Amino acid sequence: MVNKYSERIDALRAVMEKNGWDAAVISGSDPHSSEYPAPRWQQVKWLSGFTGEAGDLVITRDHAGLWTDSRYFIQALTQLEGTGVELHKTRVPGAVGIPQWLSGKAKTVVVDGLCWNVDAVKEIADALGEGGLVVDVPDMLEDLWENRPQIPVTPITTLDVDTFGGTPRTEKISWLRKWMLLKGVDRVLLSSLDEIAWTLNVRGSDIEYNPLVISYLLVSQDDVKWFVKKGVADDPDTLDSFSELEMDGVEVEDYDAVFFALSDFSSEQSPVTLFIDPSTLNHHINTYIQDAYPAERIVCGTSPVILEKAVKTPSEIESMRQTYIDDGVAMECFLHWLETEVATGREVDEWEASERLTQFRAQIPGYRGNSFENISAYGPGAALPHYSTPREGSAVIRPFGLYLVDSGGQYLTGTTDITRTVPMGDCTDLEKEDYTLVLKGMIDLSMAVFPRGTAGCQIDSIARMPLWKKMRNFGHGTGHGIGYYLCVHEGPQSIRYQYNPQPLLPGMVTSNEPALYREGMHGVRHENIVLCREAGISEFGDWLDFETLTCCHFDTSAVVPEILGPEALEWLNDYNAWVYRTLAPLLPADTAAWLRDKTMPI
Amino acid sequence: MVNKYSERIDALRAVMEKNGWDAAVISGSDPHSSEYPAPRWQQVKWLSGFTGEAGDLVITRDHAGLWTDSRYFIQALTQLEGTGVELHKTRVPGAVGIPQWLSGKAKTVVVDGLCWNVDAVKEIADALGEGGLVVDVPDMLEDLWENRPQIPVTPITTLDVDTFGGTPRTEKISWLRKWMLLKGVDRVLLSSLDEIAWTLNVRGSDIEYNPLVISYLLVSQDDVKWFVKKGVADDPDTLDSFSELEMDGVEVEDYDAVFFALSDFSSEQSPVTLFIDPSTLNHHINTYIQDAYPAERIVCGTSPVILEKAVKTPSEIESMRQTYIDDGVAMECFLHWLETEVATGREVDEWEASERLTQFRAQIPGYRGNSFENISAYGPGAALPHYSTPREGSAVIRPFGLYLVDSGGQYLTGTTDITRTVPMGDCTDLEKEDYTLVLKGMIDLSMAVFPRGTAGCQIDSIARMPLWKKMRNFGHGTGHGIGYYLCVHEGPQSIRYQYNPQPLLPGMVTSNEPALYREGMHGVRHENIVLCREAGISEFGDWLDFETLTCCHFDTSAVVPEILGPEALEWLNDYNAWVYRTLAPLLPADTAAWLRDKTMPI
Repeated sequence: MVNKYSERIDALRAVMEKNGWDAAVISGSDPHSSEYPAPRWQQVKWLSGFTGEAGDLVITRDHAGLWTDSRYFIQALTQLEGTGVELHKTRVPGAVGIPQWLSGKAKTVVVDGLCWNVDAVKEIADALGEGGLVVDVPDMLEDLWENRPQIPVTPITTLDVDTFGGTPRTEKISWLRKWMLLKGVDRVLLSSLDEIAWTLNVRGSDIEYNPLVISYLLVSQDDVKWFVKKGVADDPDTLDSFSELEMDGVEVEDYDAVFFALSDFSSEQSPVTLFIDPSTLNHHINTYIQDAYPAERIVCGTSPVILEKAVKTPSEIESMRQTYIDDGVAMECFLHWLETEVATGREVDEWEASERLTQFRAQIPGYRGNSFENISAYGPGAALPHYSTPREGSAVIRPFGLYLVDSGGQYLTGTTDITRTVPMGDCTDLEKEDYTLVLKGMIDLSMAVFPRGTAGCQIDSIARMPLWKKMRNFGHGTGHGIGYYLCVHEGPQSIRYQYNPQPLLPGMVTSNEPALYREGMHGVRHENIVLCREAGISEFGDWLDFETLTCCHFDTSAVVPEILGPEALEWLNDYNAWVYRTLAPLLPADTAAWLRDKTMPI
Repeated sequence: MVNKYSERIDALRAVMEKNGWDAAVISGSDPHSSEYPAPRWQQVKWLSGFTGEAGDLVITRDHAGLWTDSRYFIQALTQLEGTGVELHKTRVPGAVGIPQWLSGKAKTVVVDGLCWNVDAVKEIADALGEGGLVVDVPDMLEDLWENRPQIPVTPITTLDVDTFGGTPRTEKISWLRKWMLLKGVDRVLLSSLDEIAWTLNVRGSDIEYNPLVISYLLVSQDDVKWFVKKGVADDPDTLDSFSELEMDGVEVEDYDAVFFALSDFSSEQSPVTLFIDPSTLNHHINTYIQDAYPAERIVCGTSPVILEKAVKTPSEIESMRQTYIDDGVAMECFLHWLETEVATGREVDEWEASERLTQFRAQIPGYRGNSFENISAYGPGAALPHYSTPREGSAVIRPFGLYLVDSGGQYLTGTTDITRTVPMGDCTDLEKEDYTLVLKGMIDLSMAVFPRGTAGCQIDSIARMPLWKKMRNFGHGTGHGIGYYLCVHEGPQSIRYQYNPQPLLPGMVTSNEPALYREGMHGVRHENIVLCREAGISEFGDWLDFETLTCCHFDTSAVVPEILGPEALEWLNDYNAWVYRTLAPLLPADTAAWLRDKTMPI
């Protein structure tokens, strides 16, 4: 079979053969370890057609494989048809990762060192063992990829902390410098885009859904150098932002100048020590650092910005509370519209529903776009955890069964993420049972109280146990951190089955989204966003719990009360009553009246 | 203040000063990393008077400290009074372990290398840093300790697997040899007494409560050498055991000959590789090994016997099921006796109750002693998780409030462990609430279903959440592994708040014992023993759950049904009905009639 993807893979193979490379490993990320790469770096998509958010390719002379996780198994099988690319499952028992797979199969492996982090390349090199070689060819696909997109350059804006919450950049830089003193390092190089955006209080739109600016940041006790494309420097907002930054002591330099800045170690008057985070720093830039700095002058570790960013400040929390109420207004308007349209017999398809939701959200003050691609899925489509709604020919939403909508907005005052599964009319017993079991898990986790020091992986089973008792499960995490007008997925905390020792701390904002997927039938996911907070102190210790930020009712028509149990039922009724009380004054009268009915206690 | 303990400590200090030792670190264990050391090795007790099961001492010129965990905080404060020994808390947030504490305070530290494992000594040496020195003085206290007990020598018996379940020793040795081939080692040295007893199917009574024989075992592809005290070799059972072992190819050698056996590496015809487990092997014997074997010929790791022993065979499981029923007969007879005595106004104290329980247990066929010291505690005494009932002047059990009894038997067909908290009459609301919350946690964990691969630490929160929601907690683990006519505490699995990656496997037998302690008031602990088993396979994976082995009713008089909730209440009624159904035919008529009343559904 031949299609444009298999042709591209063959073209790459020809280059590999010419150069004596046994395998090419293509990253699904960019030079900044971003979850969503800009089009320029969507190399996996260009080579294979796969559009999932997580996936890496390995091409050898006789094999082409895509490594991705359970969220994308079904999607991958569809999208890879005819490409010759085979699916390799990750995060399943007995999974073989790329490094182990390569071991024994390849000696010389080529990577685009810009798009792989230091740790990942080291893992590959270690797996190849003695005699193995990792060749770094930055922009490896450049010559094959006609009209490859450029590095994006979009207007840059700075955040006004007085209006939108957060901490002034000068304070953040002071905090970082204090950390550097304690750590005994002279310079910190940041390359993760959300860490940079957080530190400088800057936002852009270089990457879809993520309000980020492609750049590097180098901080020392004396100066702060921001390496960024200046292409739209004639944009007035960008110009203002640059002057504001410079007034705060941030030197704005060209993106590519970072290589020179890192290479001038020898010109330093006294030896300096550089801190890097090899789990996000790209391999290519690291080769410059390794050449310029003596090994003992490079300190590796986890960037301190990650944890600091995850713990929201009181002003950020206050803003997020309001933002989630505003976002709830859009959601309720959408859900009311959808129910009315479908009930009156109009043929609304998934795509139209998705577009309409975005329109409702766009009316919220401070809206700056969606925080990820809307998942608008009816029936079997919802069984794909990360279903991508097709623009043409998407499924029509019928007045029965389950419709799942997972969406979120970027607002100047926070990032939102919410999933509701909507019973569109009659549901089967199995749909109701799944709907209720997942809801019970979500509620049980919402009600959890836990000692300070508890990590998300220690309470993950609370959300899963109602499903587990019926021998049902879902393949993804229960909760991810959420940024403040930043990435919709952020660390370091998570609520997962897998071990992650990071304790949940007061101020962390995390999703709570258990689910269930039945291929070819239906999918259920209920997602609220919860804020970890102090619950009190007792003679038995210091306690934390969750405050739910998301403000949007759960439909009770598919709830089986006996499955939910009295405690969760009470929570549900209380929650729906709070949603009505909070949103009714903000909603159009007909939507408010409709919501009153939807939130009646059961 | 001066008492006999402070005098002994001062005597040790004089020796330390003479030798130029800054600190002496005294272990609460023996040369085999046993949890319960024989009297000879109860050095912590001899020096400080502390009798807890876990505790190590550090003596410096100006400080004496006992390191122990929350189970013994209250006990330690009482027992250490007047000794000058201060309590250092372990397993609490911010706890400073012995190695860190020594760091900077001492340069030369003396240890009895026989009683510290290799890892522990390495940790101390690492903490001392450059210029630090760990001096190994085996039997360090020998000269100070008048009439120090000898190494115990008790009759040895072998288990008849046809009668009592288990696997023949020849099969176990074959299994170990296969493991050695796969691991690429020529010899395995076992020093943990329960690993040796399991491998050889031998039992003794060298250690109170644990049917073990003090010995070492050295296994190669060609021979099996058991190093053991032969002092009672004129005992006919012991003689029979030795011949039986020798018929199976086990050479019985003298205990001390292990040092020679390990030192003869240079006489080997071809170089051999030795496997040791540095987490249990004592430091002193390791110095012999390090002298005799080149470093590359010593392989360190976790002994494979630990996991193999923890996964009970079908015949062991069958025997344990019956043993737990027999043990339940003793428990119900005891509980009936206790209730009757107290109700009729007799003054039964904790000690008498404990003795009576042992008498009931001693009537069970196959009984070989208790598996640990009975905890028989009324009222405030029960607030000490490991209360030691005094022979004289123990509390009288009154017809109100809570009595806690934690006990277990050693039987030829298994080891038991059970805790019941008994409402003796009227209880306060707080007693009832605590009683019910702990019971709910125990029941929730009993009902858990989980995917294959799940570790105990991932479901620990299931047992704690009812307490956590009321900001209550307990400081010990929820569950420990249990041996088969071996130690009542064994690994590698556990159900704990702390991380332990060992998955729960079908065949593992573990305790389920959440609790709550209110100092000066009352204590609640409910403990059943559960068997992990296969629950089924679904489209969502492979599932495990628990079968409860313990067969003894829970008193419902202190249960608050609304706190328990409908699901746990149904479990409780079903469980009590099963206990009655199972035990009634085995009980005296009056006890059976009493049990019928006690197990009526609520």
